[in-house]
Amino acid sequence: MDVAAVTAIAPDAPLEKTTIHRRDTGPQDVLIEIEFAGICHSDIHHARGEWGRTIYPATTGHEIVGIVREVGSEVTGHKLGDRVGVGCMVGACHDCAACEAGQEQECRQAVMTYGSPLPEDDPEGPVTQGGYSTHIVVEERMVVAVPEGLDPAAAAPLLCAGITMFSPLRQWNVGPGTKVAIVGMGGLGHVGVQLAVAMGAEVTVLSQTTSKRDDSLKFGAVEHYATAGEEGTQTLKNLRGTFDLILNTVSAPLPLDRFMGTLKPRGVFVEIGIPSEPMSVRAGSVTGGRKILTGSMIGGIPETQEMLDFCAEHGITAQIELISADKINEAYDRVVSSDVRYRFVIDAKTF
Amino acid sequence: MDVAAVTAIAPDAPLEKTTIHRRDTGPQDVLIEIEFAGICHSDIHHARGEWGRTIYPATTGHEIVGIVREVGSEVTGHKLGDRVGVGCMVGACHDCAACEAGQEQECRQAVMTYGSPLPEDDPEGPVTQGGYSTHIVVEERMVVAVPEGLDPAAAAPLLCAGITMFSPLRQWNVGPGTKVAIVGMGGLGHVGVQLAVAMGAEVTVLSQTTSKRDDSLKFGAVEHYATAGEEGTQTLKNLRGTFDLILNTVSAPLPLDRFMGTLKPRGVFVEIGIPSEPMSVRAGSVTGGRKILTGSMIGGIPETQEMLDFCAEHGITAQIELISADKINEAYDRVVSSDVRYRFVIDAKTF
Repeated sequence: MDVAAVTAIAPDAPLEKTTIHRRDTGPQDVLIEIEFAGICHSDIHHARGEWGRTIYPATTGHEIVGIVREVGSEVTGHKLGDRVGVGCMVGACHDCAACEAGQEQECRQAVMTYGSPLPEDDPEGPVTQGGYSTHIVVEERMVVAVPEGLDPAAAAPLLCAGITMFSPLRQWNVGPGTKVAIVGMGGLGHVGVQLAVAMGAEVTVLSQTTSKRDDSLKFGAVEHYATAGEEGTQTLKNLRGTFDLILNTVSAPLPLDRFMGTLKPRGVFVEIGIPSEPMSVRAGSVTGGRKILTGSMIGGIPETQEMLDFCAEHGITAQIELISADKINEAYDRVVSSDVRYRFVIDAKTF
Repeated sequence: MDVAAVTAIAPDAPLEKTTIHRRDTGPQDVLIEIEFAGICHSDIHHARGEWGRTIYPATTGHEIVGIVREVGSEVTGHKLGDRVGVGCMVGACHDCAACEAGQEQECRQAVMTYGSPLPEDDPEGPVTQGGYSTHIVVEERMVVAVPEGLDPAAAAPLLCAGITMFSPLRQWNVGPGTKVAIVGMGGLGHVGVQLAVAMGAEVTVLSQTTSKRDDSLKFGAVEHYATAGEEGTQTLKNLRGTFDLILNTVSAPLPLDRFMGTLKPRGVFVEIGIPSEPMSVRAGSVTGGRKILTGSMIGGIPETQEMLDFCAEHGITAQIELISADKINEAYDRVVSSDVRYRFVIDAKTF
């Protein structure tokens, strides 16, 4: 079927309304009528060709919530009328060690929601097309259920931002007594604070400035510190040996040794924002106290479901600004200048 | 008591024979007549002031094996005539979380075997003096038993090199099925290969050249690859996704991203050699596959005892060149030029 979409047609052109083709619903597929699509910073990098591998036209969007409108003959996990979600991936081999461990993001055959190569002559074109459109066809195993009680618009960003934060918090066993720092108070950070607080952790926000301090405390953080400038350097010194876990959502380069210094012995620093420049870290920052520098990228499908269920149980969603499709270009500029609290979500009726 | 020693008196002067003072054996102390003292590269850095904090005169040496000749009135763990060992530490608070966890190396009051500040008016001088001497007085809790069956000269390097390798191998649960790479085939590396093999791991040596390949295989490694030059780069590419654990004993800067690339997802790179320059690593080297970059420094006293017992059980010692005290300066130069297989040990009778 041909469906309405908003699409990047060139790196330096505004996104525009287009029509894209979705394949017929196969035996293992569901057709989803999209209700809401979140805007992730990755969408902007991709649409603008900043990662150097965009094939145009490119429809972005990997924070998708909608209603199941068709199910294939072999579908067992979803039924007509269900509210469901799709995140960063729409396919995987389902057969490798990563898939069997529920870590489809590490499957070598993982198909990303947009920009992943498709077989030649695929009816959907040369690469996958994302969620800025009215409908999408996805194999059911990559689709999660959106629990009742979650506002569907505000839940959309959980499909990327939520799992991206939830997965490392779970991996590193965050719970009561854990001291967690969230670096960066944006789309990822503000969800991460809520998740870590709900897990019982004592959460501190480390941000460039104190401008979002009230929000940090509202989301349950016990403290919010500014880390920029000389005062910030002193703050980081004062925090030496404090945290069990730091999740860094900031992609700008950080003075990593100073942040590593705020970890306890055996503490863990998880890189989530991906700076384009190499990171620089003194060996002493990991040898003394055997600290860990690691990273994380999204998470698998079972864990995404677990995350949504956890969010429903604890009343966690993103704080969003709902926009119509004609505001996407403006929204992109505002995301780039960090002028959003905290995530744009597009109303898919307006595509 | 005054005892013979070989001591650095200035950064650029050869070590020379001196006399140093050891305190009286206190209630919790043992007096050890030193039999053998290993030469660790750290001794050279310290003696030559390369770490910028040496107080002269400086007697180095923290790989000590000897015989107990006096015991304090409260000593229960060692008795006259026992063969014992002392490693990098001679004191700790024994009361903090690190000490209670048997990780005295992370105790803030840990006293290093040489160069640690002593209280004013301490009879032993302003800083501790190490093992290049005939006797040493050490509190019994920092002294380990050298099991029968271990050659005492060849066991001396285990007190530093052995525990430095054993501790991260244990921390990261090396056992049958684990694929381990040891980077650098020197004093640390050649012990690490033997330990990892004895734990049941499949061990690969990654070295600049293949000059020590025969030794690697003799110590039980399944392979030894050269990593220098273009051929080395290709080798590292071919090894992508191979290892569960890499222990890096090399302090020269490495192309870290390439080495991280040889890890499996969730694999662990442990920095043990401490380069003076900051390390550079792309975020993608830790985010994709959630790999871990961490470090390790020596280990605690209970684990040092466990390591010695493990070595006795598996017949593991360092491969050494036994020298007399008048050869120390020459040995220092040979260590710096990597001209030793694999560790110098000084016969303490010659001090």
